[in-house]
Amino acid sequence: MPLQSFSADEIREMEQRYRVQFINSLSGFKSVNLVGTVDAQGHTNLSIVNSVVHIGANPPLMGFILRPITVARDTHDNIMATGHYTFNHLTEAMYKQAHQTSARYPADVSEFDATGLTPAFEGDFPAPYVAESPVRIGLKLREKMEIPLNGTLLMIGEIVEVWTNADCIAPDGYVDIEQAGSIACSGLDGYHRTTRLARLSYAKVDREVREV
Amino acid sequence: MPLQSFSADEIREMEQRYRVQFINSLSGFKSVNLVGTVDAQGHTNLSIVNSVVHIGANPPLMGFILRPITVARDTHDNIMATGHYTFNHLTEAMYKQAHQTSARYPADVSEFDATGLTPAFEGDFPAPYVAESPVRIGLKLREKMEIPLNGTLLMIGEIVEVWTNADCIAPDGYVDIEQAGSIACSGLDGYHRTTRLARLSYAKVDREVREV
Repeated sequence: MPLQSFSADEIREMEQRYRVQFINSLSGFKSVNLVGTVDAQGHTNLSIVNSVVHIGANPPLMGFILRPITVARDTHDNIMATGHYTFNHLTEAMYKQAHQTSARYPADVSEFDATGLTPAFEGDFPAPYVAESPVRIGLKLREKMEIPLNGTLLMIGEIVEVWTNADCIAPDGYVDIEQAGSIACSGLDGYHRTTRLARLSYAKVDREVREV
Repeated sequence: MPLQSFSADEIREMEQRYRVQFINSLSGFKSVNLVGTVDAQGHTNLSIVNSVVHIGANPPLMGFILRPITVARDTHDNIMATGHYTFNHLTEAMYKQAHQTSARYPADVSEFDATGLTPAFEGDFPAPYVAESPVRIGLKLREKMEIPLNGTLLMIGEIVEVWTNADCIAPDGYVDIEQAGSIACSGLDGYHRTTRLARLSYAKVDREVREV
């Protein structure tokens, strides 16, 4: 397959929206989650993010990249106000509603109401889950790190609660998110179902990996 | 679908390897990339990461999480020595070789040699690409941020070169990585091919999203 090269100069000279699409495609397939929050008065908010990343298992930490100035101001302010938020995986049944949450609704409009997704409050956890989501994670903010290069924020939360279908958890702890119905995304707006090729054994120097 | 809850206490009490599998599954589907580096003497190194995340398009920035103490010491040291590295998407044809790079080879063994993947040097870019990869990105380190919560590092690089199949680039700049042959991963060891559901239009408040 002949590949074409794109230099730093060529990337810099791309039309701005073209460059945004191009660069957003390069990291590979991405997670896609709805972030559920609530303000101090109890108004719910929902936003879609494709930058959630595993930070560590002990303590259980997940991060995501937030652009507080241009978008997602409500999400940022709500997390700072309450210290809590949820991540909720998307499914084929509701990814269009989830995508619609990225429209710029006024602060007094809940994206739950606007898109028809259902807020689910569990116990005394302060932030709303998405009832249509098969994998839901409750987080407490632990660290907000500014990335000086472009002013974005890495928001790191500790997992304090998980909701998922126990039938999707393998004996070794792996959660089969494909079986649960989670989907993937690419770029800014591509959504994909998946088909598992394999799980592979822990790699050792003198042994070929095998399917497990 | 009945969901089961897992509390912070229940997560903390999980057996350590079980918790690692469980927590690593929660972020959703992940990108998976091979990181190509070289040391000051020209010895090549290759490691697999599933934490690459888009940071920004202008300047074009990508990050990844690195655990320098426990694993990937060579990757870390090589990036610090040369300031450059590559990301290379995985395909169905070579994901098992890519997974095998996570075995703990001695520092004097190149994972290229050990796994049969082919280093490709392009022009005067100092780090090796993976010849079998359909989407290859050359990066220059711009920032190394330590995450105090667990000592991991967020390594942020600026994209200085991209190699991909021009036929896979849509008119708006979106790179169709599924068409290019890239795959996704889940948890620590699950690999998945994808099937696109749709690309969705830019969301606006008073308009339903549509497929584009």
